[in-house]
Amino acid sequence: MVGRDILKEFEPIFFPKSIAVVGASSDDTKTSTQYLRALVQSGFHGAVYAVNKSGSKSYGIDIYPDLKSIPGSVDYVIIAIPRNAVPQLLDDCAVKGVKTVQMFTAGYRESGTEEGLRLEKEIVQKARQGHFHIIGPNCIGVYNPSIRMPYGPMSKVGKPGSLGFISQSGGHGGRFIELASDRGINLSRLVSFGNGADLDCVDYLEYFAADPDTKIIGAYLEGVNRGQKFLELLKKITANKPVVIWKGGRTKAGAEAAASHTGALSSSYAVWKAAMIQSGVIAVESMEELTDTIMAIETITKPAGRKVAMVSGLGGGGGGESVFGADAFISQGLEVLRFGDEIRRHLAALLPPAGTILRNPVDLGGNIPRPQVLEEIIRLILADDNVDILVVQEHLSRMMDKGKEQVSVINNVLVNTWKSQDKPVVMVTPGWAPTVAALEMEKYLRDAGLPVYRSLETAARSIARIVN
Amino acid sequence: MVGRDILKEFEPIFFPKSIAVVGASSDDTKTSTQYLRALVQSGFHGAVYAVNKSGSKSYGIDIYPDLKSIPGSVDYVIIAIPRNAVPQLLDDCAVKGVKTVQMFTAGYRESGTEEGLRLEKEIVQKARQGHFHIIGPNCIGVYNPSIRMPYGPMSKVGKPGSLGFISQSGGHGGRFIELASDRGINLSRLVSFGNGADLDCVDYLEYFAADPDTKIIGAYLEGVNRGQKFLELLKKITANKPVVIWKGGRTKAGAEAAASHTGALSSSYAVWKAAMIQSGVIAVESMEELTDTIMAIETITKPAGRKVAMVSGLGGGGGGESVFGADAFISQGLEVLRFGDEIRRHLAALLPPAGTILRNPVDLGGNIPRPQVLEEIIRLILADDNVDILVVQEHLSRMMDKGKEQVSVINNVLVNTWKSQDKPVVMVTPGWAPTVAALEMEKYLRDAGLPVYRSLETAARSIARIVN
Repeated sequence: MVGRDILKEFEPIFFPKSIAVVGASSDDTKTSTQYLRALVQSGFHGAVYAVNKSGSKSYGIDIYPDLKSIPGSVDYVIIAIPRNAVPQLLDDCAVKGVKTVQMFTAGYRESGTEEGLRLEKEIVQKARQGHFHIIGPNCIGVYNPSIRMPYGPMSKVGKPGSLGFISQSGGHGGRFIELASDRGINLSRLVSFGNGADLDCVDYLEYFAADPDTKIIGAYLEGVNRGQKFLELLKKITANKPVVIWKGGRTKAGAEAAASHTGALSSSYAVWKAAMIQSGVIAVESMEELTDTIMAIETITKPAGRKVAMVSGLGGGGGGESVFGADAFISQGLEVLRFGDEIRRHLAALLPPAGTILRNPVDLGGNIPRPQVLEEIIRLILADDNVDILVVQEHLSRMMDKGKEQVSVINNVLVNTWKSQDKPVVMVTPGWAPTVAALEMEKYLRDAGLPVYRSLETAARSIARIVN
Repeated sequence: MVGRDILKEFEPIFFPKSIAVVGASSDDTKTSTQYLRALVQSGFHGAVYAVNKSGSKSYGIDIYPDLKSIPGSVDYVIIAIPRNAVPQLLDDCAVKGVKTVQMFTAGYRESGTEEGLRLEKEIVQKARQGHFHIIGPNCIGVYNPSIRMPYGPMSKVGKPGSLGFISQSGGHGGRFIELASDRGINLSRLVSFGNGADLDCVDYLEYFAADPDTKIIGAYLEGVNRGQKFLELLKKITANKPVVIWKGGRTKAGAEAAASHTGALSSSYAVWKAAMIQSGVIAVESMEELTDTIMAIETITKPAGRKVAMVSGLGGGGGGESVFGADAFISQGLEVLRFGDEIRRHLAALLPPAGTILRNPVDLGGNIPRPQVLEEIIRLILADDNVDILVVQEHLSRMMDKGKEQVSVINNVLVNTWKSQDKPVVMVTPGWAPTVAALEMEKYLRDAGLPVYRSLETAARSIARIVN
């Protein structure tokens, strides 16, 4: 929209100074009470109010009988009340001068009934007349770590970061926040918009395109109404910010589920995917691929080529991993070149011949090498012209049995050697049930800025997506 | 081989009554000492000896200066000594009447040198003349939980089971044992055979085909020398026992790594894969796919059709998962059919309309339902003619926050309802960093006999492999 100051317009959506939760009480099984609890426990930076005819207090917050009884102004109202009570409440919001109404309440277009469709039109009309925006209906709402604004009932708030996320699904929004936290990806903001009756994904895309805190945009979408506008916008955005989109409802059964979920109408996935790629978007097809790809974009920032070197057999495994690594990288269109004779001679001086492989991929033999030896090997490989990027497979869970100290020294060597030069290093820490100690060491690697994958296959796929 | 009594011939390989570790001392950094320690700590059922000129004791075991000084007979000798000391030792083995020599020692064919090739021929000749078998060289050896025979230096021994595994790679053998243990797959026996100079994968396949404890055979192979014999054998075996094979060295770089690793010569992967499929083998391409598939074979035992029902939103997530589940199943060639009207009416009576989806895939809405409600929903779905198999996505890590007791009740309901009828149920517990409590609950499900996957995608792929 020409002349739309979207940062200003969306300020009360992403940076509300006051929030009122309608319907919250002392009954902890109610969704509205859970929203209130999360706002209190997360330490949200603004004012928090509760509205319920019952009055009294909940989580230390005064409960007002109605919106107009709240003494201060209210930017943002959370609605998780029955559908039939919504119209009156929206009228109250208009009177109170509320800017944003976030509706958990469902039973609109996604119900597949004429009644639902009619009611959805009605709430949008009320929003236009009352000069407020609606997020949803049928959604969980906004997450903004920089003001400790929690995501729905999830009170845990992560560190602020640079990944902006748009989710048509509330559940996927929550899963993404959890997974991002576990994998060391920090978010600028996230919005789940459900049916997107008033504001839809085009609006939120516009916002994240303008938002200076957001450097990468991710999205889970089930359907788009303003297709032309959406594609034009994406083309503009992807020139400056990477955009990764996971489209749900690729298949007929998936699309039917999507229609029941958020009322979204999907077109053919093949057409969608082609349009995405033409618009410069990275298209992914699962939650795991989404986080894998975002991690790669965040960490493989140097102009990387496709020549991969690998070190396997660090603290476990060995030759078989080298074989698999080569297979995985080549299968993804990457290159695994031979080292020059000089490197091989150097490696032969550093490693014993038995149980190791002194070529690319290098097999350290399954042991933990001395730190100086590891440093020299990593340095040698990264200095080779036949290497653009190094992948290191490290058996963290098994190594931690030997004590944290020794493993810390090894991981320090990896981090420092990587930081002393320009080429990307990618870590792989295999394991179905990683130990707590291994997860801590993984966090150390992530905090230092190294990407961490659980399998050579996903690492290979993620690298290939970046260098292609 | 006509008339070959392979169970009897291989008895001293898989069921040795006495094992001597050559080279073991009190120096814990030596591989041979680590083998000895594992034999002691695992509680191996037979006699354990150590051989070293140094004499003395290690881990409570008397160290004899040479093989012939050992008072009793020795079935199985473990060699992890330098290559040049091997010929003399093999002569000693012949004199002592040893039946099996397992060689960790490397530097033979896989070295790519003429010397290595010549020495490999020499050790085989000595084995023939001395009437013993060699496992390896360049391998970790045998694992047999039923006699608590550990795998190389890994002292942890799992429960005996029915999965027999053949690995050309020692490292992958170890990784497989760990992963199988984490995922509740129990092994009958495993052998890593490295260069396979004397006994190769055809021999071990013959053994596992005859072994009554082994119901499913898995293998990681890098190359096969007796191709014709191998394929004929597989055709016979797969008529009775499922065989799952992961072939390493699919690509040129992978094949080159394999040559350096175990001296294996690979042919074209496309040719290989076609031959595998024609022989009735299930071909997989990674460690994860290998365990995913074996778990599916072990648990989806009823003649299952391709009509999948799904329950999502159990303890988290919801509609977006339903969309993804439908996409994942359909993409794998499975079917996701609509429920009949009667089921939908029943579901509508059991679940609230808002935030749930009352069609296949069902979305419970992200909460933990009352146990009776869950039981009725599961029972209803499993009774439907449009359903051959049920997939349940359960957010264990998130649910465990609400206390173990409530989650135990829910999982009891799942297990008991499944057991009360005939159709397979498949569990999906998503999560990058599962909590210890969640892993325990996952183990409960596995011990009860339910397969557990971490993503709908891998569950879909594994189910598709079984029903196809």
